[in-house]
Amino acid sequence: MVMLFEKSEYIERVNKVKESMAVREIEVLIITDPANMCYLSGYDALSFYEAQAVVIAPEFEQPVWIGRLQDYYCAVETTWVDTDNIIAYPDKFLWDTTKRHVMGFIADYLKEHGLDKKVIGVEMDAYYFTAFWYQWLQKSLPNAIFKDATKLVNWIRGIKSEKELEYMSRAARLVEKAMKNAIDKIDVGIRECDVAAGIYSDIISGNAEFGGDYPSLAPIMPSGKRTSGAHLTWTDKKYQDNQIVYMEMSGCYRRYHAPLTRTIYVGKAPQKVHDTAAIVVEGLNTALELAKPGVTCEEIERVWQKTINKYGLEKESRMGYAVGLSYPPVWCEDTAFFKPGEKIELKPNMTFHMMPGMWLDGYGIAITETFRITEKGSETITKFPRKLFVK
Amino acid sequence: MVMLFEKSEYIERVNKVKESMAVREIEVLIITDPANMCYLSGYDALSFYEAQAVVIAPEFEQPVWIGRLQDYYCAVETTWVDTDNIIAYPDKFLWDTTKRHVMGFIADYLKEHGLDKKVIGVEMDAYYFTAFWYQWLQKSLPNAIFKDATKLVNWIRGIKSEKELEYMSRAARLVEKAMKNAIDKIDVGIRECDVAAGIYSDIISGNAEFGGDYPSLAPIMPSGKRTSGAHLTWTDKKYQDNQIVYMEMSGCYRRYHAPLTRTIYVGKAPQKVHDTAAIVVEGLNTALELAKPGVTCEEIERVWQKTINKYGLEKESRMGYAVGLSYPPVWCEDTAFFKPGEKIELKPNMTFHMMPGMWLDGYGIAITETFRITEKGSETITKFPRKLFVK
Repeated sequence: MVMLFEKSEYIERVNKVKESMAVREIEVLIITDPANMCYLSGYDALSFYEAQAVVIAPEFEQPVWIGRLQDYYCAVETTWVDTDNIIAYPDKFLWDTTKRHVMGFIADYLKEHGLDKKVIGVEMDAYYFTAFWYQWLQKSLPNAIFKDATKLVNWIRGIKSEKELEYMSRAARLVEKAMKNAIDKIDVGIRECDVAAGIYSDIISGNAEFGGDYPSLAPIMPSGKRTSGAHLTWTDKKYQDNQIVYMEMSGCYRRYHAPLTRTIYVGKAPQKVHDTAAIVVEGLNTALELAKPGVTCEEIERVWQKTINKYGLEKESRMGYAVGLSYPPVWCEDTAFFKPGEKIELKPNMTFHMMPGMWLDGYGIAITETFRITEKGSETITKFPRKLFVK
Repeated sequence: MVMLFEKSEYIERVNKVKESMAVREIEVLIITDPANMCYLSGYDALSFYEAQAVVIAPEFEQPVWIGRLQDYYCAVETTWVDTDNIIAYPDKFLWDTTKRHVMGFIADYLKEHGLDKKVIGVEMDAYYFTAFWYQWLQKSLPNAIFKDATKLVNWIRGIKSEKELEYMSRAARLVEKAMKNAIDKIDVGIRECDVAAGIYSDIISGNAEFGGDYPSLAPIMPSGKRTSGAHLTWTDKKYQDNQIVYMEMSGCYRRYHAPLTRTIYVGKAPQKVHDTAAIVVEGLNTALELAKPGVTCEEIERVWQKTINKYGLEKESRMGYAVGLSYPPVWCEDTAFFKPGEKIELKPNMTFHMMPGMWLDGYGIAITETFRITEKGSETITKFPRKLFVK
C-alpha cells in the first residue's frame, strides 16, 4: 500500500466533507468525480471510464469505495481505508444496463445499511456522472431525496496542505524542465510531434529524485495560424520560419498539477507580436501583484482587463482558475475562476493557474503561471522567465 | 483546414446517422460524446472538458457544431462544415450555471430553427453528458420529447472504412515500436517512470513518415504484486529482480487507436507464470482463429473461457471490445464486447481489442491484440510476438 498523505490528513478531509454535508442537510454523499474520490480515499487508478464511487455518511467512519472487481486490488493498493470498506461489483453490472447497473449496486449497498430513505447528495455536474446514471439511481432509491452536491468536495480541496503544495512544487519542476527543453528544441524543420514527444518524456521521467505522472490533459501546442484556436495541439508537420507557437502544458506529480504556458516565435517576430506579448506579461504581473488574502477573484480579473484595455485589447474568456489535484479530462478544479462577478476571496494556500491569453485574428499569445496565495501576497509555484521567446 | 477524410466519407456517415434516427423516430440528435462529434464533423480539439455538441437533423444538410467562442477557430480548422454551421457561445455561459448554461444556448438554437417541439435524441450515458446538463436541456425545451440515443453513433462507427483501417495500422506501428523499446529497456534498477517516458516518446514521435497523437488513456503498466489490479500504472520505483510487469498501451493516429498488451518477467519466471502465460496465449489464439463474419461475440468469449477452464482458470470480466476512434477517458468504443450473452455478429472491417487477461492472487498476466474481421476470417492489426517476455 502506498500512502501519499498521513492518515490524519485524510481524516481531516473527510471530517470537513461531513461538516459541509451537515450544513447542506445532506445525509449520504455519493462521490463519482475521480479527483474527489482520490482526495478522500486515496484511490488512484485508470478505471474512471467505468462507474465507481466513494460514499460518505456519518454512519461510516471511513469513506466506502465501490468499484469494479478487477480494480479491487487497485483500491487495496492505493486507498487508506480498511478492506471492509472496499466493495467490488462483478462485471455483469456492466453487461446489460437495461437489466442492472452499477448505480443499482450502490443503491443496494445503501439499502443494506439502512440509508435508502435519506437525503442523498450526488455530483450532478461532475465529469462522468451521466444523465443515465442518475436515472438509475433515482429508480433504485425511490424513497431517497436527492440533492445536488456538485463541487461540495472541490471547494474543500481549494486550500492546500503543506504536502499538497510540495507535490505541486514537484509538478512545477517537471513542467519547467519540459518547457525549457521544448523551447530549446523548437526550430525550423523540427517536427511538432518530436517536441511533444520530448515534453512527455521530460514530465514523466522527471529528475534523479522523482518521476512524474500522466497529466490530465495533453499539451496544447499549436503553431502558426492554428494558435488562433484555444485548444489545438501538435501535428507531425515541421515548424516553419516566421511562425508563432504557444505551449500550454502541465507537470503532474501524484495527480497534482502545475500548468505553465509560454509563447515562442520562430524567426523575426513582428512588432505587434512583441507588443501583444509585452501587454500580456504586464497584465499577468499586475494581476499577480494584486493577488493576496482578502482580494476577490473578480478584482484580479478586473486589473488584468484594465491593463490590456489600456492598449485597446479585450479578453472575453476567464483568465484563470483554481488548480491542483485532478484526473482527465482537465486539470482545472472547477471552483474559483478569475472572471467578472466572482466574489470569492483569496485565502492563504489557495492555488491557481493564472491564464492570460489573447486569441486574436490570425494568432494567439499566452504566458501563464501557477501560483499560490501566501499569508501576505502570492508567489509563483512555476519559476520560468516570463517573456516571449524568440528563436 | 485539415481534412482527415474525404467529404464524401463524412457525408456517408451523416446519412447513416440520419437513417438510424428515422428508424428510432428521433427528429433531432444532440451529440456530446467527443468521439461521435469528431466522427461526424471532424472536430478535434482538447476542449471536451466544457460543454459542446454537434446537432444532426434532417433540416440541416450538415452537422452543426456548437462550442465555446475560444474554440471557434478550432472548429474552422478541423471540421468539414461550412462556417455557417459553426456556432459559438460566449464564455458567460460557463460563469453561473444557475442563470444560464450551454444547454440553454443549444436549446435557443433549436428554437430559432423551429426544432424545439421535436423528438430529441440525447446520449444519456455518454462521457461528459452529466445529469445536470440533461436537467438544463429538459427545462429549456419544455415542449420537446427526449429519447435516449446513447451509442446510436457508436454503433455506426463499428465497421471501419479503408482510411480508418489505415489510421489504425499506423497506430499499430506506433505501439509496436513503443512496446519493443519498453521491453528492451525494462531491467533491474531501471525506474518505471523512465520506461513510461520512453513509451510516450515513441508513440508520439513515431517514425520518419508520421508522428502520433496522445492516446485516450495512459499506459497501464504495474509491476510486482501491483499487477493484481487491472488499472494501476507506473511509479518512480525501480524494477526489481523476480518481478512480473504487464504493459497495456495504445498508439494513436488521428484519434484512431491500436492497443496492445504484453507481460514481461524480470528474472527467472516461476513455472506457474510460464504456464499461465501459455494458457492466455492459447486462449487468445483459439479466439482469434474462431473470429470471422457470422460468429457472435459471445461465441468468441465462450471459446476463450472454455480454453482457460480446461486448466482450471476462469475470467469473470469481459475479454475484449470494439476499438477505433476515441477521446479520453478510454479507447473502447463501448458497443460490441466479448462477453456472455452478446449476440452481435461479427462483420468484415469491425475492429476489436481482444483483451485476455488473468488477474490472479498476487500477480496478473495479459497478452492482447488489436485485430480486424476480414471477409473470411480475421487478422491482427498489431504485429508483435505473442508470448511472455523474460528478461
